[in-house]
Amino acid sequence: MVQKFGGSSVGTVERIKHVAELVAKAKVQHPHLVVVVSAMRGETDRLLGLAGQMAPRPDPRETDALVATGEQVSAAMLAIALRDRGVPAVSMSGPQMLVRTDGMFSRARIKSIDRSAIDRALMRGQVVVATGFQGMDDEGNLTTLGRGGSDTSAVALAAALHAARCDIYTDVLGVYTADPNLCPDAKKLDVIAFEEMMEMASAGSKVLQIRSVELAMNHNMPVRVRSTFSDDPGTLVTADDEHIERLVVRGVSHDNGDIKVTVRRIPDRPGVAATLFRGLSKAGINIDVIVQNASEDGKTDVSFTVAKADAAQTEELVREAARELQGGNVEVDHSISKVSIVGVGMRAHAGVAAEMFQALHEAGVNIAMITTSEIKVTCVIARAQVEKAVKALHARFELHAGGKKATSTTPAAKKVSKPKPKTKAKVAARRGKKR
Amino acid sequence: MVQKFGGSSVGTVERIKHVAELVAKAKVQHPHLVVVVSAMRGETDRLLGLAGQMAPRPDPRETDALVATGEQVSAAMLAIALRDRGVPAVSMSGPQMLVRTDGMFSRARIKSIDRSAIDRALMRGQVVVATGFQGMDDEGNLTTLGRGGSDTSAVALAAALHAARCDIYTDVLGVYTADPNLCPDAKKLDVIAFEEMMEMASAGSKVLQIRSVELAMNHNMPVRVRSTFSDDPGTLVTADDEHIERLVVRGVSHDNGDIKVTVRRIPDRPGVAATLFRGLSKAGINIDVIVQNASEDGKTDVSFTVAKADAAQTEELVREAARELQGGNVEVDHSISKVSIVGVGMRAHAGVAAEMFQALHEAGVNIAMITTSEIKVTCVIARAQVEKAVKALHARFELHAGGKKATSTTPAAKKVSKPKPKTKAKVAARRGKKR
Repeated sequence: MVQKFGGSSVGTVERIKHVAELVAKAKVQHPHLVVVVSAMRGETDRLLGLAGQMAPRPDPRETDALVATGEQVSAAMLAIALRDRGVPAVSMSGPQMLVRTDGMFSRARIKSIDRSAIDRALMRGQVVVATGFQGMDDEGNLTTLGRGGSDTSAVALAAALHAARCDIYTDVLGVYTADPNLCPDAKKLDVIAFEEMMEMASAGSKVLQIRSVELAMNHNMPVRVRSTFSDDPGTLVTADDEHIERLVVRGVSHDNGDIKVTVRRIPDRPGVAATLFRGLSKAGINIDVIVQNASEDGKTDVSFTVAKADAAQTEELVREAARELQGGNVEVDHSISKVSIVGVGMRAHAGVAAEMFQALHEAGVNIAMITTSEIKVTCVIARAQVEKAVKALHARFELHAGGKKATSTTPAAKKVSKPKPKTKAKVAARRGKKR
Repeated sequence: MVQKFGGSSVGTVERIKHVAELVAKAKVQHPHLVVVVSAMRGETDRLLGLAGQMAPRPDPRETDALVATGEQVSAAMLAIALRDRGVPAVSMSGPQMLVRTDGMFSRARIKSIDRSAIDRALMRGQVVVATGFQGMDDEGNLTTLGRGGSDTSAVALAAALHAARCDIYTDVLGVYTADPNLCPDAKKLDVIAFEEMMEMASAGSKVLQIRSVELAMNHNMPVRVRSTFSDDPGTLVTADDEHIERLVVRGVSHDNGDIKVTVRRIPDRPGVAATLFRGLSKAGINIDVIVQNASEDGKTDVSFTVAKADAAQTEELVREAARELQGGNVEVDHSISKVSIVGVGMRAHAGVAAEMFQALHEAGVNIAMITTSEIKVTCVIARAQVEKAVKALHARFELHAGGKKATSTTPAAKKVSKPKPKTKAKVAARRGKKR
């Protein structure tokens, strides 16, 4: 069994002691227990702040070496607390566990885990308290996996050890049908499919790092999201099989973390999109929704969304590209939100997108951009209307009452209805980066 | 060349930037440069505090894993600052440098250093920013070398790399003939012999960790102690050869870190000392000066000194042993000091101890205990009289004026005069622990 405790769960000395109690109880049931911890809440930001004080653009290798200490501290503290309770425990850093990654500092990917050191400790009866978020590249440099990377560490360890399940302890009770802060009717889900969870994550539901869900899906590793501060069993994220009731829509998700950039009146000819997005791609900026309006006079408008954090750099690069293309104005809208409906039932259920647009229309919410995937429809709307939109969609798809059942009367295998004419919607592959 | 910067030298962001400037300058002269850093001042105590909050007796392995992060942080920060200045640099932790130690957590000893990783970085033209104070045992556990262990790391690295010299940067200008806070006449020494430095360290002069001096002496590695905040060349610690002018007394040293324990009226028979000190030895408590008075009625008194930090545990263990021996009262004196004169010239110079006793007598300082070595005489006195004693000895041996020359007229090879009759003085080997 692998358990993971996030930064808020180990945020103080008292909370680490509480986690030690949970782990001590779990050890009775699960003799082979690996516990993955994040840095104490705020510690990663404190360390990044130190790096930022040393240089305007701190060296990535050294920043990773600096930041990786956060998890070493919390892992050692938890091991001390466990031993104090008489539970044999040993902390292990990424290098000690031989968690091999590529050399992409600050967003490394795990390549392999050599389980021998972990196995030796487990055989000795010790709980392994593993540092999340970090590994070591082939040259022995410390690397980190990016924000939220401890989720990925936990799932990767669970997969490497062929664990029965990976429990992610966090500060919420589980995954909800919508953000309870916006939508008081939101209900906790008992179970959700991997694919649904991935789309929820990419649409702004921050319960799990998207890459960890991808990894869990690839290894078919059940993940339970639950609260450190409650006995509630939480939400089980699992394969899309008969255990999950097929609903048209599993949840409504929203994301306030993006801005919208529009480039007006650029020539509508091949290579324009390439010119526009080449610079962003080089700079490692992930583009989410892209919409290009069909042209009428040989000129076209292109809009897309990027994360707020990339706003300044994006604007600069796009203005440069627009000049090159002899295009018109570049407009940046900082007050947008994305609102999405997610559900594997959509695959076999026509008219879901149309129903979403109708619900938003009835609520008086204007849609600025639309993008769809197999099991998700996303609309870009004004930030000020996001609460109204989430509530309207939650009600329309009856999520307060368990959701509308799928597959009953509607014809199967029909695709989600396409968005309005005169709009080409593309879905850009978003790299697995938690916002 | 190896340079070491202590906790006060890297105590703030600004100071680390200052160190980066010093290192950048040194790199011009010394293309192969290894810089050893301690944790930022206060950081080790903060981390030990976290360990102490988790458990009354935190596990030693986990405490080492926790505390070792302090140097990783400062090393990465310095490497970031160096790279920001265009100086190629790379931080390396104890395990990354393959600094092998024994498994004695919190006071490990370095067994070997594999220089290959360091050499590769040096060959690439990089400054290696090495974490002091830490290593890895044969099982891959992180270990730490004990307080002040970064000095030892620096000397060990210098020896392994066959460096020309090891420069220890600290917050004082160098080694003084006495503590300038007590004795305004104290003068900075340009040079001091290894052995003298060792005795100064053991007698309370806290400039260098004693074990690092021992290591430097064993490898004949010249060490320069100098200030991070001054261009002064500091004090060169080197072999006792013709380069050092032979003085009777090189310096006066004092130590307020001990307490005195006296056990009254215990039977004067074989095995008594063994019984008395067995428990202390098991508990790892270092005993310094021991004095046993000759008995008159089959009973004897034994006095000894231990570090303040060990006071409570010592008292408990000694009371137990005294009961076992059916001895009398145990008295603890918390207000003692040790004052010592140190100089290699003593070896060939008779009457130095007598001159010390005379000087203290004339200053009205009462001597409670005496101990001697080849190149040191130590007296235990009342704490209240320490300043008077240091000043009197500093004046008597003319240290304000460069010191009294040795070997001129006095007969060589005669031992230091023995302490008063009726007192057997023993010198206990003090383990190399900086107080």
